[in-house]
Amino acid sequence: MTQPRRGRPGHDQAAVLQTAIDLFNRHGYEGTSMGDLAAALGVTKAAIYHHVPGKEHLLAQALDEALDELDALVTAAASAPGTAYERLRAVVRGAVDVLVAHQPAVTLLLRVRGNSPVELDALRRRREVDARLADLVRAAAAEGSVRADLDPELVSRLVFGTVNSLVEWHRPGGELTPDALADAVTTVVFDGLHAGAGPEL
Amino acid sequence: MTQPRRGRPGHDQAAVLQTAIDLFNRHGYEGTSMGDLAAALGVTKAAIYHHVPGKEHLLAQALDEALDELDALVTAAASAPGTAYERLRAVVRGAVDVLVAHQPAVTLLLRVRGNSPVELDALRRRREVDARLADLVRAAAAEGSVRADLDPELVSRLVFGTVNSLVEWHRPGGELTPDALADAVTTVVFDGLHAGAGPEL
Repeated sequence: MTQPRRGRPGHDQAAVLQTAIDLFNRHGYEGTSMGDLAAALGVTKAAIYHHVPGKEHLLAQALDEALDELDALVTAAASAPGTAYERLRAVVRGAVDVLVAHQPAVTLLLRVRGNSPVELDALRRRREVDARLADLVRAAAAEGSVRADLDPELVSRLVFGTVNSLVEWHRPGGELTPDALADAVTTVVFDGLHAGAGPEL
Repeated sequence: MTQPRRGRPGHDQAAVLQTAIDLFNRHGYEGTSMGDLAAALGVTKAAIYHHVPGKEHLLAQALDEALDELDALVTAAASAPGTAYERLRAVVRGAVDVLVAHQPAVTLLLRVRGNSPVELDALRRRREVDARLADLVRAAAAEGSVRADLDPELVSRLVFGTVNSLVEWHRPGGELTPDALADAVTTVVFDGLHAGAGPEL
């Protein structure tokens, strides 16, 4: 057994976590064992357990990586200056940024179905984020800047469904920059596809 | 062993298929055995094999259920009267209808990753549908009815990403009728969330 990064536990823990997220996404959480993780990292199971108490701890850390970012995003939006419309548009843009920057962790989060206490806790945190997003849609509709003919909860689901669907096809390092992707998403969602529907043409 | 629906093979085959799709969605294709399927239907494995040659055949049938509908939708749109914009808007609406009417099969299709020849064939058919959707977006941009400042392939991915994201939360028989859902999706995608045209607030 080799421990090439011994003495750099922080780095090791991050590497273990990112490899675990990758395996969870490819083979499922249930389909991934600590032995698989050790094999992928080229170390023994004992070396893994030196860094993390177990598989469920890795899942919790992975889900927290995505949820902490989304939580920070909606918290910042709640107290930011500007109209509800400006803050909502900034949150949609920020959600694209979070997804691009943390795509493996967000992908894992979106697949969580509540099969364990860790997953149930992640779902609870995700619902809290969703509720605060719906509040922002409601505030924008109340100020008259977002169409009021659609239910705010439904709008929130559609908008963040659009953002979340990026994990299905977006590949890091592709031709599309994160900024161009965020522009495209916010343009379609807020200004619409119809030529002349929005202010940008 | 009982065979309550003996003599109604068509009905039996449909029931077997829908139960298989449900199990594949809940436990994964790999995580579902023909024994699980027999147990869920309350019959013996031999009775299942009386109706279908095997698990992969069920997967192929399930994916065809969704793909045949989507294929018919884009084929009809290609030869329908009206502008490209009208046909594109009808396709988006139709895609919501297909998703609602065949939600389990569409959910299964969206999870296919190409792990077998059957899955690879489904991915090939899905890419064909996507390409024809992008053609329609391109035609609508060329006629000037859809904004031309966004790449048609990207627009197609975002629009159908929005439609596909419905499988994550839409529950059949809920408060929202299929028509209201299709209205909401087409309104957000084509007209945008921003209240009215004109300068941004």
